[in-house]
Amino acid sequence: MRIVLVGATGTLGRGIHEVLRERGHEIVTASRKGSDVPVDITDPASIRAMYEQLGEVDAVASAAGSVPWLPLDRLDHQDVLDGITGKVTSQVELVRQGAATVRGSFTLISGVLARDPLRTGAVASLANGAIEAFVRAAAIELPQRVNAVSPTVFTESMDAYGELFAGFEPVPVRQAANAYLRSIEGHQTGQVYEVG
Amino acid sequence: MRIVLVGATGTLGRGIHEVLRERGHEIVTASRKGSDVPVDITDPASIRAMYEQLGEVDAVASAAGSVPWLPLDRLDHQDVLDGITGKVTSQVELVRQGAATVRGSFTLISGVLARDPLRTGAVASLANGAIEAFVRAAAIELPQRVNAVSPTVFTESMDAYGELFAGFEPVPVRQAANAYLRSIEGHQTGQVYEVG
Repeated sequence: MRIVLVGATGTLGRGIHEVLRERGHEIVTASRKGSDVPVDITDPASIRAMYEQLGEVDAVASAAGSVPWLPLDRLDHQDVLDGITGKVTSQVELVRQGAATVRGSFTLISGVLARDPLRTGAVASLANGAIEAFVRAAAIELPQRVNAVSPTVFTESMDAYGELFAGFEPVPVRQAANAYLRSIEGHQTGQVYEVG
Repeated sequence: MRIVLVGATGTLGRGIHEVLRERGHEIVTASRKGSDVPVDITDPASIRAMYEQLGEVDAVASAAGSVPWLPLDRLDHQDVLDGITGKVTSQVELVRQGAATVRGSFTLISGVLARDPLRTGAVASLANGAIEAFVRAAAIELPQRVNAVSPTVFTESMDAYGELFAGFEPVPVRQAANAYLRSIEGHQTGQVYEVG
């Protein structure tokens, strides 16, 4: 399949790239910089330009989403908006605009905070909850399949985030990447693949 | 208790008002017009003015949230933003700004589409999923309790929405109002009370 991988340069994106390449797929990487196609998913016009450049693809795999991590009493209105722009409306736009030219499936990124909150993660929780419910809803309207992958913290990220995720069982990034593969090559839609 | 009821004039708001009044609570109603205190919850400055006018209250009950209902292929980026402003960031602001002066609890409105999607309801699903995950997260950071009520369609609304909710078992609005009472007088936090 011809697959566009959005957010190709992060820990998860690189893991997805490896798994999809091993399966023989043609991967077009997309990210702010350093990828085949430049895209800023917080900007709907940039997403439009990306899809115009891509032409038809079989699948969109999104591993891109950024949210502010702040204690709730230090979070301001703009932080909430930034998190929504960074992970929710961005990925909704990938689906909405891609509906015209994507043949097979969309796989979006959520995360464990949808179900297991952590202090400083209120916006992450909100964004993930929004994405998971959106995926269930979009699946019953779109001809394409739409799923989300919702991983816990990665083994590879424990140096950076281990303090915050104390006591969580981390999973290898490859396990989350396999969930993308399952979403892309599988047959289900409207699913949230919880990893870990 | 002294309770501010936001969105007091809708079907649910009136039901909550009745149940809280029967329990002897002092209710201050808030809505765009026709209430004790005027508030446009899509405007953070209006929420600030509301809390300044209110002074200390024991509980905030929000029954206010509006989202666009449109087929996904007719939904534009602005519709998604409108739904987020109408039901998500609005209620997050009620909690964020209320944290300074609310003594007891916040109860927010979600809805069945978080778990059971319907065509034309993608933004409603997204908004409800966001609110439910936010409530779980806010509960572990705030000294106040924070819950959501997530009702299915109301018996009283079946004339208007029955076609869309064909086969759903409607619940009397009073049952959702009781979930607000349970949230306000009860002891739990971070809960999503599914009604129906």
